Amino acid sequence: MKRTKVIDALKSVEYGKDINVKGWVRSHRSSKAVDFIALNDGSTINSIQIVVDPSVMDEEQLKSITTGACIGVDGIVVESQGTGQTVEIQCKNIVIYGLCPSDYPMQKKGQSFEYMRKYAHLRLRTNTFGAVFRIRHNMAIAVHKYFHDHGFFYFNTPLITASDCEGAGEMFQVTTKNLYNLEKDEDGKIKYDDDFFGKMTSLTVSGQLEGELGATALGSIYTFGPTFRAENSNTPRHLAEFWMIEPEVAFLEQEGLMDLEEDFIKYCIRWALDNCKDDLAFLNNMIDKGLIERLEGVLKQDFVRLPYTEGIKILEEAVAKGHKFENPVSWGIDLASEHERFLVEEHFKKPVIMTDYPKEIKAFYMKINEDDKTVQGTDVLFPQIGEIIGGSVREENYDKLVGEIERRQIPMKDMWWYLDTRKYGSCPHAGFGLGFERLILFVTGMQNIRDVIPFPRTPKTAEF
Amino acid sequence: MKRTKVIDALKSVEYGKDINVKGWVRSHRSSKAVDFIALNDGSTINSIQIVVDPSVMDEEQLKSITTGACIGVDGIVVESQGTGQTVEIQCKNIVIYGLCPSDYPMQKKGQSFEYMRKYAHLRLRTNTFGAVFRIRHNMAIAVHKYFHDHGFFYFNTPLITASDCEGAGEMFQVTTKNLYNLEKDEDGKIKYDDDFFGKMTSLTVSGQLEGELGATALGSIYTFGPTFRAENSNTPRHLAEFWMIEPEVAFLEQEGLMDLEEDFIKYCIRWALDNCKDDLAFLNNMIDKGLIERLEGVLKQDFVRLPYTEGIKILEEAVAKGHKFENPVSWGIDLASEHERFLVEEHFKKPVIMTDYPKEIKAFYMKINEDDKTVQGTDVLFPQIGEIIGGSVREENYDKLVGEIERRQIPMKDMWWYLDTRKYGSCPHAGFGLGFERLILFVTGMQNIRDVIPFPRTPKTAEF
Repeated sequence: MKRTKVIDALKSVEYGKDINVKGWVRSHRSSKAVDFIALNDGSTINSIQIVVDPSVMDEEQLKSITTGACIGVDGIVVESQGTGQTVEIQCKNIVIYGLCPSDYPMQKKGQSFEYMRKYAHLRLRTNTFGAVFRIRHNMAIAVHKYFHDHGFFYFNTPLITASDCEGAGEMFQVTTKNLYNLEKDEDGKIKYDDDFFGKMTSLTVSGQLEGELGATALGSIYTFGPTFRAENSNTPRHLAEFWMIEPEVAFLEQEGLMDLEEDFIKYCIRWALDNCKDDLAFLNNMIDKGLIERLEGVLKQDFVRLPYTEGIKILEEAVAKGHKFENPVSWGIDLASEHERFLVEEHFKKPVIMTDYPKEIKAFYMKINEDDKTVQGTDVLFPQIGEIIGGSVREENYDKLVGEIERRQIPMKDMWWYLDTRKYGSCPHAGFGLGFERLILFVTGMQNIRDVIPFPRTPKTAEF
Repeated sequence: MKRTKVIDALKSVEYGKDINVKGWVRSHRSSKAVDFIALNDGSTINSIQIVVDPSVMDEEQLKSITTGACIGVDGIVVESQGTGQTVEIQCKNIVIYGLCPSDYPMQKKGQSFEYMRKYAHLRLRTNTFGAVFRIRHNMAIAVHKYFHDHGFFYFNTPLITASDCEGAGEMFQVTTKNLYNLEKDEDGKIKYDDDFFGKMTSLTVSGQLEGELGATALGSIYTFGPTFRAENSNTPRHLAEFWMIEPEVAFLEQEGLMDLEEDFIKYCIRWALDNCKDDLAFLNNMIDKGLIERLEGVLKQDFVRLPYTEGIKILEEAVAKGHKFENPVSWGIDLASEHERFLVEEHFKKPVIMTDYPKEIKAFYMKINEDDKTVQGTDVLFPQIGEIIGGSVREENYDKLVGEIERRQIPMKDMWWYLDTRKYGSCPHAGFGLGFERLILFVTGMQNIRDVIPFPRTPKTAEF
């Protein structure tokens, strides 16, 4: 008989119909007359109740079906006698696929997230992580659907790169060289002409520069792939390997960019609310009581659009009124998390798109305003999370861009292709980057970024 | 005035309406009375014709708008006088965003693909590569839509890994160590405890093993991300960095796996035929006259399901009848490309799913048949491409799996988590891997895999 997934079985209303379900045992309670097995197959947070008359199988065998065991059940759909579900299955036959020894690490409920990280392969079978990763899937689908429906093309930029022009962070070196036999040249420099790519290569910190190559040809593109930072940051907000979404759009200017950022992120959150109801209800109940309200809150409000200079004024006024920040506030600083959170959570009480940052604290490719002091950045600041999007209009003027690259002494040798976009038919364009795991943190209410990616890579950790 | 994309402008039938389009000049022809500019913005293979009365702008300025220049046009939608398009634009005003110097590398038509690879950032602006990368986008959307609609969850497996258990290929080392100062232990071995992850790490050759962890918890998952092979293969079929799709499904057995493979790949091809008509028509016309017919052919036929042993018999019979192969045929060999193509293109004249391979030529994790000689592999062989999918049922029996790992002397130290899936609630499961670029080759009719990924990584090449 063909298997029915639990998510579909629970929607069945054809009482009396034969059904087959397969999955893992979440719990098994026995009484004299009847056994109850809660069976889950990962398709939904909800388990289906299997009602077992002990006469259907050998007593010892039935007892061996403990939490974590994998079984298949043939039975009949019946109306549930208990509360909660409307459907349960009256068991006719059980097939045991795999028993579960009593040292099963996910045996006990209420283990800490830190403990569960050590068993990242098995935590996937718990309610919390099932919910998190089903939501993560849905957010990825929302990303692709949004951009596809808006005429963007998914554009795969390379992960192995010979350039580090953005300087966005420390990089991992990629090599096939035999480290026991590193040949050096006359100046004592390691020779890379015999490395796989014939030069020194690293893992990318951003696909943006290559994304711009796509946008200035295909019009609107987005990347969505892994990105790497070799920073020794052991925080609940940093991963060495994370997923980034980087749309880049020709003929887009600052207002349009902010519209895109706000529309996109609201679309993703709406998608979660519409498509992940059960998982969100579970997380709202178990992890973060304010979760759904916060998600709905974001949808109701227009984001504040706040020039950096105005933001500094608000912070300075707060200081004048006695608010204490750990980090001093003055025009030109890179805002600290406490500053961002004050603006978002205390002052405006809604998301803020901060614009027109001092050029000295931003990257070389951002379009310089006429004041020659600020650039057309458009970062989105969120409650709880802080910066969730970093965006900007890109400098499309060849001379200005080269001037900025020279002023910052960025090595130009590997940059000819980037400059070509400004040399041949240059166009105004803009884009942003969103760290996918930051979005998942916001949408799930989880507190540690290691708990929203299946197998986190962090300093000293590359298990699984 | 709000910009209209060329793809939408071409569908406009509101003659007399004001319109604004922006894009890059594909060609500019002048006559005494009127200029014609073909404008393309990457949204479609088709350009829109801009009809310019030379009086609308300074003569020198108008002349400066050459192939590759980027402009914005305000005008009126009019019925086209020429053939082909139904719509053109009567120009009222032109804004020049970026001119294009005469050394523009994509100036001339009919450049070789090899030449264009050197300008991978600018080839994106040509008809051929525009078509290829719009189709690539559409194939990615088809992948996500197929799996989402079928209840699979997108599962992001790690790229940096400390294990190389599959042994699928040579690996790239990933390190933050200072190669000028490599400390060694007493045995002369390089110490990795001070490397970023505290051990030696590499780039993954497959997400399958981690994918199985997802499937045995969430039921049905798929990966779709970059994968790496450090093989020194300079062929039109190999990349050092490529994208792989790896679904993995709990409770799936061999027949169901073959159904999934065939249904999935037909869905993708149907998606291309339904959603990429103009781009396919262009490629069919310019690159491969048999393309559309071949794509439609795949949809019409049931794939042959052929046990390896039967396949060998067919090949041996062909040899007996005088067919010459370069590589000898006998039971136990790993089929060469010429053998696969004979079966697919000459003998059956349709795609073949080959099953039940000798275990010695397949990976350790494949489920062993009762004959103890063959394993439940299910590879899909395609015309032109050869092996496009590699799939198998996975061995779910703990003892058999461990036996095979020991027999093959695969180091077990980093494998505890993989074995745990067979220890705790083991379930039958199966999955496959599809190289995304192989699919794009088939769907576009392109001949070289370097031409279906934006910025190819191959031996000695990591430009852009």
